[in-house]
Amino acid sequence: MSISGDQIVRSAALLGAGIAMGVGAIGPGIGEGFAAGKACEGISKRPEESGLLTRTMLVGQAVSESTGIYSLVIALLLIFVVA
Amino acid sequence: MSISGDQIVRSAALLGAGIAMGVGAIGPGIGEGFAAGKACEGISKRPEESGLLTRTMLVGQAVSESTGIYSLVIALLLIFVVA
Amino acid sequence: MSISGDQIVRSAALLGAGIAMGVGAIGPGIGEGFAAGKACEGISKRPEESGLLTRTMLVGQAVSESTGIYSLVIALLLIFVVA
Amino acid sequence: MSISGDQIVRSAALLGAGIAMGVGAIGPGIGEGFAAGKACEGISKRPEESGLLTRTMLVGQAVSESTGIYSLVIALLLIFVVA
Amino acid sequence: MSISGDQIVRSAALLGAGIAMGVGAIGPGIGEGFAAGKACEGISKRPEESGLLTRTMLVGQAVSESTGIYSLVIALLLIFVVA
Amino acid sequence: MSISGDQIVRSAALLGAGIAMGVGAIGPGIGEGFAAGKACEGISKRPEESGLLTRTMLVGQAVSESTGIYSLVIALLLIFVVA
Amino acid sequence: MSISGDQIVRSAALLGAGIAMGVGAIGPGIGEGFAAGKACEGISKRPEESGLLTRTMLVGQAVSESTGIYSLVIALLLIFVVA
Amino acid sequence: MSISGDQIVRSAALLGAGIAMGVGAIGPGIGEGFAAGKACEGISKRPEESGLLTRTMLVGQAVSESTGIYSLVIALLLIFVVA
Amino acid sequence: MSISGDQIVRSAALLGAGIAMGVGAIGPGIGEGFAAGKACEGISKRPEESGLLTRTMLVGQAVSESTGIYSLVIALLLIFVVA
Amino acid sequence: MSISGDQIVRSAALLGAGIAMGVGAIGPGIGEGFAAGKACEGISKRPEESGLLTRTMLVGQAVSESTGIYSLVIALLLIFVVA
Amino acid sequence: MSISGDQIVRSAALLGAGIAMGVGAIGPGIGEGFAAGKACEGISKRPEESGLLTRTMLVGQAVSESTGIYSLVIALLLIFVVA
Amino acid sequence: MSISGDQIVRSAALLGAGIAMGVGAIGPGIGEGFAAGKACEGISKRPEESGLLTRTMLVGQAVSESTGIYSLVIALLLIFVVA
Amino acid sequence: MSISGDQIVRSAALLGAGIAMGVGAIGPGIGEGFAAGKACEGISKRPEESGLLTRTMLVGQAVSESTGIYSLVIALLLIFVVA
Amino acid sequence: MSISGDQIVRSAALLGAGIAMGVGAIGPGIGEGFAAGKACEGISKRPEESGLLTRTMLVGQAVSESTGIYSLVIALLLIFVVA
Repeated sequence: MSISGDQIVRSAALLGAGIAMGVGAIGPGIGEGFAAGKACEGISKRPEESGLLTRTMLVGQAVSESTGIYSLVIALLLIFVVA
Repeated sequence: MSISGDQIVRSAALLGAGIAMGVGAIGPGIGEGFAAGKACEGISKRPEESGLLTRTMLVGQAVSESTGIYSLVIALLLIFVVA
Repeated sequence: MSISGDQIVRSAALLGAGIAMGVGAIGPGIGEGFAAGKACEGISKRPEESGLLTRTMLVGQAVSESTGIYSLVIALLLIFVVA
Repeated sequence: MSISGDQIVRSAALLGAGIAMGVGAIGPGIGEGFAAGKACEGISKRPEESGLLTRTMLVGQAVSESTGIYSLVIALLLIFVVA
Repeated sequence: MSISGDQIVRSAALLGAGIAMGVGAIGPGIGEGFAAGKACEGISKRPEESGLLTRTMLVGQAVSESTGIYSLVIALLLIFVVA
Repeated sequence: MSISGDQIVRSAALLGAGIAMGVGAIGPGIGEGFAAGKACEGISKRPEESGLLTRTMLVGQAVSESTGIYSLVIALLLIFVVA
Repeated sequence: MSISGDQIVRSAALLGAGIAMGVGAIGPGIGEGFAAGKACEGISKRPEESGLLTRTMLVGQAVSESTGIYSLVIALLLIFVVA
Repeated sequence: MSISGDQIVRSAALLGAGIAMGVGAIGPGIGEGFAAGKACEGISKRPEESGLLTRTMLVGQAVSESTGIYSLVIALLLIFVVA
Repeated sequence: MSISGDQIVRSAALLGAGIAMGVGAIGPGIGEGFAAGKACEGISKRPEESGLLTRTMLVGQAVSESTGIYSLVIALLLIFVVA
Repeated sequence: MSISGDQIVRSAALLGAGIAMGVGAIGPGIGEGFAAGKACEGISKRPEESGLLTRTMLVGQAVSESTGIYSLVIALLLIFVVA
Repeated sequence: MSISGDQIVRSAALLGAGIAMGVGAIGPGIGEGFAAGKACEGISKRPEESGLLTRTMLVGQAVSESTGIYSLVIALLLIFVVA
Repeated sequence: MSISGDQIVRSAALLGAGIAMGVGAIGPGIGEGFAAGKACEGISKRPEESGLLTRTMLVGQAVSESTGIYSLVIALLLIFVVA
Repeated sequence: MSISGDQIVRSAALLGAGIAMGVGAIGPGIGEGFAAGKACEGISKRPEESGLLTRTMLVGQAVSESTGIYSLVIALLLIFVVA
Repeated sequence: MSISGDQIVRSAALLGAGIAMGVGAIGPGIGEGFAAGKACEGISKRPEESGLLTRTMLVGQAVSESTGIYSLVIALLLIFVVA
């Protein structure tokens, strides 16, 4: 077995990337789906406000999405930047 | 046992890909199903707004889907790009 | 024990495939079942809109199914393409 | 101990098959049962639409079942095709 | 310790069989019980439709049962066919 | 330590049997209890349909029980047939 | 360390027995308690049907208990019969 | 280290006893508490049926307790009988 | 390292005692708290039946407590009796 | 490394004490908080019965607390008495 | 590596202290927050009884806090007293 | 590898500190957020009692916070005092 | 294997970064999605207050986001600053 | 492998930092999101009290945030101060 230390570091980084993106997708995925469902519920009550509701849903989802994007950034950093 | 370090790195990458996609599919899968269910509930109340509701559901699901696609991207990167 | 490094890589890939498909089926399975249940609830309220409700349910499920299909794709890639 | 590398690969494949089918049956099993329960609820409200409700339930369950079948396919592939 | 590789493979197969059937029984067991409970609820509201409700419950449970049977098939394959 | 390979296989089979039956009893146990509870609720609303409700409960529980029996069968196979 | 293979097998059997009975008691314990609670709720609504409700509760619990008894049987088999 | 095989078996038995009783107390503890809570709820609605409700609660709890007692029996067997 | 086999057995017994009592306190703790909460709810509806409700709560809690006491007994046995 | 067997036993006892008290505080903590919340709810409905409600809450919490105290006793025994 | 046995004992004690306090804070933290929330709900209904409600909340929280304090005591004992 | 025993003790202390604070923040975080949400709900019903509600919320949160502070204290002790 | 100690430190840091960001995205993701959903619900009731509701939602989400940003900061520190 | 003991200590500190911040963000993230959602619900009922509600939400969130900040402090201490 000719394993150098850099390869151990890289293995940890790649496994960490998988965990970061996989687990990090649970929260935003559920949260944004909840928001989408509540927006549909709202439109079925007040269809004339659909623009307002869609906009609010998208703004709220965008903030929630941010943690998912952080996870993506960390995963990409762990794959490409970390040596 | 003639295992080189690159093969250890690759093993970690492939296991990480499996975790990233598998766990990363839980959140969007549940969240989008919730949105779809609420859209059906909404249409049963106001069938005349079905176009609006379907559009809102799809927009909301698209944002929620994004974290699932991030997981897919990370998994594909871990399989094909990482050496 | 005459284990080559490629066989360690392959073992990780196959175990990863099992995790990816197994865990990745939880989310869509629950989410789509919720959507189906809500569509049935909706039809029992407005049977005259059953076509609309079934269509919305199928569209919503199709999006939710996508993460399950991503899992399948990753699992197949890990089994057949990865060497 | 005279263990060849192919036997390690096969062990990982068989363990992965067990995980894929076992965990992969949780989601569809719960989701489809929810759909069946909601269909029964719907029929108890509108028995005259039982055909429509049963059809919708079956279509919805069929989509939800798909992830269970993916799991079965991956498990069978891991048992029979993977060497 | 005189352990051959085939015996390691067989050990993994038998442990995998236990996991596949044990975990795979959670989903259908809960889901079908939910369907049965909802059918009872429905009959207490409309006893005159008991035949229809029981039939729908059984059809819905049969689909949900399928993932449990897949688990059984995989477990039996792992015990008897895999060598 | 004079451990033969057959004894390793047997150990895995017995541990697998414990997991299969233990975990496999969670789902049916909860599901059937839910069905029994809903049947009692139904009878308290319509005691004159108690025969019908008890029958439906038993039929529904029987299907749900099936996954528990599969677990029992797999556990017994792992204990007695597997050598 | 003078450990024979039979003692490894026996250790696995005893640990498996503990898991089988311990985990296997979760499902029936919760399910039967739910049934008992619903029966009490039913009696507080219709005390004149207490006999019918108690009987239904006991029948439903008996079926739910069965998976607990399977766990007990497997645990006893693993302790006494398996050598 | 002068560890005989019988002591390994005994260690597994004692650890298994701890798991069996500890995990096995979760289900009955929650289930019986639910039944007790529902009985109190019932008495607050119909105090004149308190005898009937207490009796039903105790009968239902007794059945639910059975899995707890099975766990106790298995734990005691693992401690005292298994050598 | 001069570790005798009896000390390995004792270590397993003490760790098992910690698991048995720790995990075994979850179920009764939650269940009895639920019963106490429901009794308070009942008294706030019918304060004139407070004696009856307190008695029923205590009887129900006593049964639920039993599994906690079993855990205590097993833990004490594992600490003091097992050598 | 000059580790005697008694020190291994002591390590297991101290780790077991941490698990026993830590996990054992989950159940009573949640359950008693639920009881306290329900008592507050009850007092807001019937402030004139606050003495009765507080007494019932305290009695119910005392029983629920018992499992927490058992955990404390086992943890103290594992720390001070076990050598 | 010059590790004495006392240092292994101390390591186990410190890790056990972390587990005891960390996990032991889950239950009281959630339970007391529930009590606080219910007290606020009660005051919004009957502000004139705020003193009574705050007192009951504090008494109930104090009992629930006890298990958190037990965890603290055990953690401090494991850090300072155990050698 | 020149690792002294004191460094093993310190490693366990630091890992224990991470667990103590990380897991110990779950309970108070959720519980206090629940209390804050209920206080907002209360104020939207009775804005004229906002002072009283905020005070009660803060008192209740302070008690709930205590377990979080215990976790902080234990973590700081494990980092700075333990050598 | 020529692994230096610094590379072990770096591996732990990268794995820790993956855990910190992945698990740390669950809470804010779900919490912010809940807030977004409630804001949509609120707008469907009072569309004329959409500005106020969106502002409150964003302020509340910003505070909730803070823990996600802490996780990001810790993950970045672990990747770039820690050597 | 030339690993010094200080590097083992540092590895444990960095892994502990990842756990402390990652797990420690779950509680406040969910709790604060709940508070934000309830504040939006409150404003949709009483928009004229939006200032009061936002203030209460922020105060409540600030207390809940404290445990998240404790986690941050512990994580930073583990990264920078601990050597």
